[in-house]
Amino acid sequence: MLLAPYLKGAKPAEPIKGQAMNNMEAMTLALAEAYKGFASVSPNPLVGCVILDSQSRFLSKGYHQVFGGPHAEANALKNLSESDLKGAHVFVTLEPCAHEGKTPSCAKALAKLPIKAVTYGLQDPNPLVAGQGAKILESAGINAQIFSGSESIQQELEEVCEHFLWNYRHKKTFVSLKVASSLDGFMGLSNGESKWITSEESREMSHVLRASHDALLVGRGTLLADNPKLNIRHPQVQKTQKIIVLDSNGIALSKLNELDLLKHHDPKNVYFVISDKHKDVLNPAQVNLIHAPLEAGLLNLKNILEQLWGLEIKSVFVEGGAKVLSSFISEGLAQRLYLFQAPILLGGKAGRSWSEQLKIETMSSKISLKNQKVTKLQTDTLFTGKLV
Amino acid sequence: MLLAPYLKGAKPAEPIKGQAMNNMEAMTLALAEAYKGFASVSPNPLVGCVILDSQSRFLSKGYHQVFGGPHAEANALKNLSESDLKGAHVFVTLEPCAHEGKTPSCAKALAKLPIKAVTYGLQDPNPLVAGQGAKILESAGINAQIFSGSESIQQELEEVCEHFLWNYRHKKTFVSLKVASSLDGFMGLSNGESKWITSEESREMSHVLRASHDALLVGRGTLLADNPKLNIRHPQVQKTQKIIVLDSNGIALSKLNELDLLKHHDPKNVYFVISDKHKDVLNPAQVNLIHAPLEAGLLNLKNILEQLWGLEIKSVFVEGGAKVLSSFISEGLAQRLYLFQAPILLGGKAGRSWSEQLKIETMSSKISLKNQKVTKLQTDTLFTGKLV
Repeated sequence: MLLAPYLKGAKPAEPIKGQAMNNMEAMTLALAEAYKGFASVSPNPLVGCVILDSQSRFLSKGYHQVFGGPHAEANALKNLSESDLKGAHVFVTLEPCAHEGKTPSCAKALAKLPIKAVTYGLQDPNPLVAGQGAKILESAGINAQIFSGSESIQQELEEVCEHFLWNYRHKKTFVSLKVASSLDGFMGLSNGESKWITSEESREMSHVLRASHDALLVGRGTLLADNPKLNIRHPQVQKTQKIIVLDSNGIALSKLNELDLLKHHDPKNVYFVISDKHKDVLNPAQVNLIHAPLEAGLLNLKNILEQLWGLEIKSVFVEGGAKVLSSFISEGLAQRLYLFQAPILLGGKAGRSWSEQLKIETMSSKISLKNQKVTKLQTDTLFTGKLV
Repeated sequence: MLLAPYLKGAKPAEPIKGQAMNNMEAMTLALAEAYKGFASVSPNPLVGCVILDSQSRFLSKGYHQVFGGPHAEANALKNLSESDLKGAHVFVTLEPCAHEGKTPSCAKALAKLPIKAVTYGLQDPNPLVAGQGAKILESAGINAQIFSGSESIQQELEEVCEHFLWNYRHKKTFVSLKVASSLDGFMGLSNGESKWITSEESREMSHVLRASHDALLVGRGTLLADNPKLNIRHPQVQKTQKIIVLDSNGIALSKLNELDLLKHHDPKNVYFVISDKHKDVLNPAQVNLIHAPLEAGLLNLKNILEQLWGLEIKSVFVEGGAKVLSSFISEGLAQRLYLFQAPILLGGKAGRSWSEQLKIETMSSKISLKNQKVTKLQTDTLFTGKLV
């Protein structure tokens, strides 16, 4: 959770020019840089870069800031002269690109410089070009190698660009689930009371997480019960979010004028998913409509995700309700869980379980999360792990 | 959770003689020392001591090891000569005792030495003697003062002896609850499957926690369903535990010969709590019987705790089941929760909530835990916080 610096009051230590750094420190700093692009690089990967001088002293850093803009390496090289770079060591979280795309090839640009070495975190996931960036560098006499660090930093190097890697490897939209619950697993009370279970700090963090996905998805129930704004409210993050609402029979769509959603979103960024059987719904607000088949009375999530992929929505942040969350889990369609736990107990007699619709028949078929990380926030705890 | 060093493979760094230390490091080390007595000092408090020489270099450390044995200060002073102690600074987690009890007064013993200063974590909780240890030291020309550190170390200084402080302040038994659950709040499946939700490391830690309490308490249902040994199985901890079983109508008592409990426990350490209405139960195994009144069909926990206090049982570790845990929480009779969470989901359709009997009517009456701490174990997460 290197996104923690986005919490209010957090002041990540900034390195000083000339400060000595070892390889691990340089790559860790490059990772922290990479995360800074979280709200604006999709569908590109998050990439960070750190440059040390010939004496392993910090020179500069940079990250891929915005889709279509300069890559991390180019940003780190900005303001450095050839003499600064003599014998320098470049650390980058992903293999420098070999090909010309929206920007020039980073490998070729680096090859022209008097640098000594390039250490990169992950190889390019495209098997056709993997290692080509490194080859370009080697041909120019630059020592190019994959970073070998601890298991935890290797994991972090994968995770920083996990949406991109998933998209690339599976040609599918990455799905994250967000839950806010009590310690005993309840997202609210059965009488409907639920607002602000978690602390302000958790909510701030969930706005960062919202912004790190292309779209935000909720079920009709959540929209009608809570009338949420579903926008991003964070002092350091500006982003126009895409919104997806699962609304099989169009009931929420028909009530849009009673809700606040369109006060905060342009209808062209809002997608309502309606069942095939309700193709005749009225759409006076002119939001986007997606039609999906029903399966056992529920919208077919797999089909919806395929359509979202076709719409270039590469990552989705699912915020509820309980039925939607459980369906994504039980169908194996979600890749990551973000669980905010408040240090409170709500009790099972009146508590509403967030996984109430999820049925596990035997202990052996329980769902185990991988690579879990636990971050203690000021009041709450954020647990995250991979579901698939 | 300074008990973490008791996890398998944990090797807490041992200070080297002559190593420079600041006040905070010395007091933190004294705290770690204090915890070492966890299985054997009750009803005394856990106390640790660290001595630095006149140049603030580490000299020695010690802790109160066993009830009736030498205090922490005496153990730290062992093997030190008067010349070692010239100008030394003694750090102790609790004010040195002023009075002669089972052992000589620590304040008086320290007053005779050529030390320069004594810094102690907490004042003696007895208002009649609070500050008297310090006065004895001051009279001998030794600078005696309360430690002023960060909020978190102050909290730790209270927590290391929280059983003792609670006992002293309230004349009541300290009650801790232990729960092992999935991330979504389930202790097992409704079909009864539950064993080994959490990892070996969590179970090891819960044996340490068992040993840090005078007695272990379970409901009849847990005893009959799981047939647990309820003993302490930890490579570094030997302790004979007292066992309390809530068994209102004596059903479990009548089945003791079918259970393993007495294979692991002397009947004189086992207490069955039977309702007043079943005073005629047969007790062939000769365990201890406690009779308690029923209230709305359930054993009156407040009454039971009063009886345990009378039996000199100063702390109880409650391990379940769900009904017992919920009752302690809703009646406000438990002081601390230890929640082990495994990174798994069990789902609400077939999952058995550990707080299923706890009813919170409105969000404003939710139960909030104080001073919570989150410890990431290898697989699971241990959450602990104060309930009262």
